[in-house]
Amino acid sequence: MNAIEKLRELFLTYLNDNHIDQSPVELYQPVNYIMELGGKRMRPIMLLMAYSLFKDDPERALPASYAIEMFHNFSLVHDDIMDEAPLRRGKPTVHNKFDANTGILSGDVMLILSYSSLMKTDTTKKDALVLLFNDIATKVCEGQQMDMNFETRVEVEIDEYIKMISYKTAALLAGGMKIGALIADAEEKDANLVFDFAWNIGIAFQLQDDILDTYGDPKKFGKKVGGDIVQNKKTYLVLKALELANEETATRLNGLMNTPTENENEKIETVKEIFNSLDIRREAEKLKKAYQVKAFDALDAVGVSEERKQGLVDIANQLMGREV
Amino acid sequence: MNAIEKLRELFLTYLNDNHIDQSPVELYQPVNYIMELGGKRMRPIMLLMAYSLFKDDPERALPASYAIEMFHNFSLVHDDIMDEAPLRRGKPTVHNKFDANTGILSGDVMLILSYSSLMKTDTTKKDALVLLFNDIATKVCEGQQMDMNFETRVEVEIDEYIKMISYKTAALLAGGMKIGALIADAEEKDANLVFDFAWNIGIAFQLQDDILDTYGDPKKFGKKVGGDIVQNKKTYLVLKALELANEETATRLNGLMNTPTENENEKIETVKEIFNSLDIRREAEKLKKAYQVKAFDALDAVGVSEERKQGLVDIANQLMGREV
Repeated sequence: MNAIEKLRELFLTYLNDNHIDQSPVELYQPVNYIMELGGKRMRPIMLLMAYSLFKDDPERALPASYAIEMFHNFSLVHDDIMDEAPLRRGKPTVHNKFDANTGILSGDVMLILSYSSLMKTDTTKKDALVLLFNDIATKVCEGQQMDMNFETRVEVEIDEYIKMISYKTAALLAGGMKIGALIADAEEKDANLVFDFAWNIGIAFQLQDDILDTYGDPKKFGKKVGGDIVQNKKTYLVLKALELANEETATRLNGLMNTPTENENEKIETVKEIFNSLDIRREAEKLKKAYQVKAFDALDAVGVSEERKQGLVDIANQLMGREV
Repeated sequence: MNAIEKLRELFLTYLNDNHIDQSPVELYQPVNYIMELGGKRMRPIMLLMAYSLFKDDPERALPASYAIEMFHNFSLVHDDIMDEAPLRRGKPTVHNKFDANTGILSGDVMLILSYSSLMKTDTTKKDALVLLFNDIATKVCEGQQMDMNFETRVEVEIDEYIKMISYKTAALLAGGMKIGALIADAEEKDANLVFDFAWNIGIAFQLQDDILDTYGDPKKFGKKVGGDIVQNKKTYLVLKALELANEETATRLNGLMNTPTENENEKIETVKEIFNSLDIRREAEKLKKAYQVKAFDALDAVGVSEERKQGLVDIANQLMGREV
């Protein structure tokens, strides 16, 4: 078992040991359901890896890693209600399996449980952890609101899009990893570098998501390739295309984005042709690469041995090289 | 201006100074809307009064009082979605004025903001405050779930009902007042007595609510008298009546509760006749009184002068004597 797998095992055992048996069951059953539904557990594992940069007893960071996973799942439960999503990880979403009210209230208690778990951490720095957690939790809500705003906004700037994905996706990863570093008593400078690493990797990860959604291998990609195009999502690919296109092409692309999809495959092909004519995939790869470079620069500057960093280098490369 | 009015002024000024001007406005506008919609501000004022039992600079407890009011309003926003309530304090509810998704997400950020505000408190006991806040916040969610469960449950025990209203209503008041006492560096024993006072007053207050809903003066009562009966709510009055009634009367009352209301006034009168035949109002007053006595016993035992307690005695009597 490599380091990543070991930390995943450690986390999954802790998760299992913390199955909630409290009453009322109607409140906690949906919490157990979504927490035990699976997923890559990327956020808690990376928090444990951040801890492991500095210390060798990652068990100490388990309550915090559980807090981050609980918060992530809280946000999924509420987002799925807002998006009316029927499935999550191939299974019914909470509001679909139970009902919307259950989703709202169980989500609320999950948010509170994430604070409770964070407070279980054996550290003298609880204040700093809670302050940081408040900050990232607020950013996640702000990112979600920006995402909702963009759906109906006519023009979205690329900078705004990057801010939105930073808040919605990167902030929790970065905040979680900084929490891991702080619990391990890392110096403030190193904890901030870990934050920067994760923030930039998080953005690169989301850009990768945008690329894969349009250019992924249908055999390997879990969802339908082209889903973002069908849903008229204002991804980086679209925003960059609108920036680079001449007036005629921009009008055509805007027209496609503002019309309900009739023939899905035809629309995907037409939009992809526009992307290809503007070399959008390469643009996206270039930007993704730039964030990756920023991330690795930050990691390089962390004051621990290369050997200790290897696990994070591996997982980042694994995430960036993924095709699903 | 008496002590209560002074603390209300203090709180309202702080609330005004903390109007949120952050972006995205779509997220924070509903927060300002509900926070500035009015209300008695009972919870933050009583937190400030708990502080004032021990110290003379209640300003120090303002961030915590704001946290409690923010949490209370978060719970209103989400509860109103779950109950599909169109109005709150005579104005459109958040999900009605904006939409349900806005209500969910703005509610979420309010829950986070309540932690942020609590953390602004100038105290060395932040850990204790957050732990207590987690505990009461969890209880509020559990109480709300119990309330929802009772709607569809056939039999509800009076003990369960008391637990539900304790969690849903009394816990936040009690936790908030204990927080006020802790910020004022009260001894643990005194802080716990303040908690007990508020817990019992909170239950008495809710029983009073049940009584007023059926027996209130229509000229003074804000809502329609008999609303609980029309909505087939399992209040203390109903549960006690079912306990005391003979089989025939119990069957009749259950029958009324399980039939959609056709003639509202007729139903209210019929149910009230059953209540009266069983002397239910007196039973409810008796139980309310018992909780009041418990509350004042706890307050009596707090180790400060009678003079310092006078404000709390006044507000409790005011709350208990209210007719609206």
